Amino acid sequence: MIKNKEKYHVAIAGATGAVGRKMLEILEERDFPIGKLKLLASSRSVGKVLEFKGKEIVIEELRESSFVDMDIALFSAGAGTSLQFAPSAVKSNCVVIDNSSAYRMQKDIPLVVPEVNPASIGENPTIIANPNCSTIQMVIVLKPIHEKFKLKRVVVSTYQSVSGSGQKAIDELKNQTKALLSDKEIKTNVYPYQIAFNCLPHIDKFLDNGYTKEEMKMVNETKKILGDDSVQVCPTTVRVPVLYSHSEALNIEAEGPITASEIKNLLKAQPGIVIVDDPQNNKYPLAIHGENKNEVFVGRIRDDISLERAVNLWVVSDNLRKGAALNAIQIAELLVAL
Amino acid sequence: MIKNKEKYHVAIAGATGAVGRKMLEILEERDFPIGKLKLLASSRSVGKVLEFKGKEIVIEELRESSFVDMDIALFSAGAGTSLQFAPSAVKSNCVVIDNSSAYRMQKDIPLVVPEVNPASIGENPTIIANPNCSTIQMVIVLKPIHEKFKLKRVVVSTYQSVSGSGQKAIDELKNQTKALLSDKEIKTNVYPYQIAFNCLPHIDKFLDNGYTKEEMKMVNETKKILGDDSVQVCPTTVRVPVLYSHSEALNIEAEGPITASEIKNLLKAQPGIVIVDDPQNNKYPLAIHGENKNEVFVGRIRDDISLERAVNLWVVSDNLRKGAALNAIQIAELLVAL
Repeated sequence: MIKNKEKYHVAIAGATGAVGRKMLEILEERDFPIGKLKLLASSRSVGKVLEFKGKEIVIEELRESSFVDMDIALFSAGAGTSLQFAPSAVKSNCVVIDNSSAYRMQKDIPLVVPEVNPASIGENPTIIANPNCSTIQMVIVLKPIHEKFKLKRVVVSTYQSVSGSGQKAIDELKNQTKALLSDKEIKTNVYPYQIAFNCLPHIDKFLDNGYTKEEMKMVNETKKILGDDSVQVCPTTVRVPVLYSHSEALNIEAEGPITASEIKNLLKAQPGIVIVDDPQNNKYPLAIHGENKNEVFVGRIRDDISLERAVNLWVVSDNLRKGAALNAIQIAELLVAL
Repeated sequence: MIKNKEKYHVAIAGATGAVGRKMLEILEERDFPIGKLKLLASSRSVGKVLEFKGKEIVIEELRESSFVDMDIALFSAGAGTSLQFAPSAVKSNCVVIDNSSAYRMQKDIPLVVPEVNPASIGENPTIIANPNCSTIQMVIVLKPIHEKFKLKRVVVSTYQSVSGSGQKAIDELKNQTKALLSDKEIKTNVYPYQIAFNCLPHIDKFLDNGYTKEEMKMVNETKKILGDDSVQVCPTTVRVPVLYSHSEALNIEAEGPITASEIKNLLKAQPGIVIVDDPQNNKYPLAIHGENKNEVFVGRIRDDISLERAVNLWVVSDNLRKGAALNAIQIAELLVAL
């Protein structure tokens, strides 16, 4: 257990990535009680420097021995790296908060959104998994609705920004866009096809059932976080030429009748949710407004005209913040408050 | 009636717009049996020149007297213009094919997708309405499914390109994108917010029920075209930073059990539909591949994992072609073949 310290020694594995940098930014913003701070990455990044609270910190190589004397390790370097190094961190009595998909569906590993299921962390966590970005912003909305009305089925279509694929994808979108606007050839590297001025109905690998891994994350992680396998999710995940923030169109069916106004009132009262819903005055959540914000923005709340016990919502959140780095650091805050 | 001529005199009202120009292109491509061709527009465009089969045609002002001696008028200049001038065309015994929303829901006016309900044109049409772009590509897919399995409910999220808002919107997306990539201020004119690197859950005006007019077009036009008010549609229409072609994520519920493979086999056999569905080899419909094509492309056909009697589809089509100009000219082809 790591409670009752004044300061906590924190390591970030994958510190140079888009999410790693955002973690650093958020630790500073929220004044997390940090003692030592270790920034870890692969050998390629060793010697690079990142800033924290005005001080330069040199990147060290991520090794099995990196976690000795550390209290909390934030992992965001892909599932392979987590599987390789998280066990060493655990052996060093360092609690791992893992942003990769490596441990999310493992039975004994809590999968946590602090506003939704903080108690699932338990008394003596070793590894805590951070859910997928598209799941987090959805499940924050679903939780109170499920509690009050019992969810039956959710049909969700996503509009996901390229930052979810890291800095390389941000560069790829910008470079392709520049090339197309000046009639030059584009290069594709991160995505199988041009992402500029295009939509790709393909995020992560395709599985045998015709869904992508990203889609099945939304199905399986939602059930685990809500602690209820009866909640049905039917997702289509789509990459769109947006830099930051994911948008999602949700059609939510409850067991019995629900109305848009009930849902609006319910969601208004939730921590972490901001309602932006005044369509007559062109107020609705937008990806460009969600960028660099901590909240999940909900709007276009309206009765489903095709089914009495359903509503539609439009949900936007910064995928690097609430969808990744912020959620991980909120988990760390829960740990030190235990 | 206008049948049994060798050549037909055709007028295009709104010839200088994005759809008008596409109509001209398609009339030439398909070698429509044209006698006289009149290109009509507002007084601002008078004297401008457009090319047809290598000849320059001077734009004339659209007037009530423009349709004397003409056989077919293709209108694509907005609902106001259609309401003002279509009656004059009808008085001149010129059949109107109207791409605007003006007459679509009028009871005695046929609303036609040639692959779906050609018979609804009837014996002596005066005005024939061309459906909304997002409806056309959806209803072409729904029709055979409804016939064979009886549709119950469709939940649809759209990813609509800016060309649906005309040439000004294409320019606005390009200009905003250029400005943002060089850290300059952007201008918004066509859309209420930045469309570059953003998604707008707002197409056309908001109505009192919280849906947009675009969304309600998908609901009401679908029922009229399928001739069945029992088909329920629940839409979310979204503008995305794509230049040409609309994409749609459809969740289709039938009255009884259906499977993805049944639907795939059924759709394969339909005119106007091309199946692009081999996800393991990254084959699925894409907006950039739909551009300037005539067909409706369908892929990501998979069983709904949340409901036995439902499937998911991803549908792409060129909104200026099958969604507008091509469909109108296919209606004209039906007229001259009557």
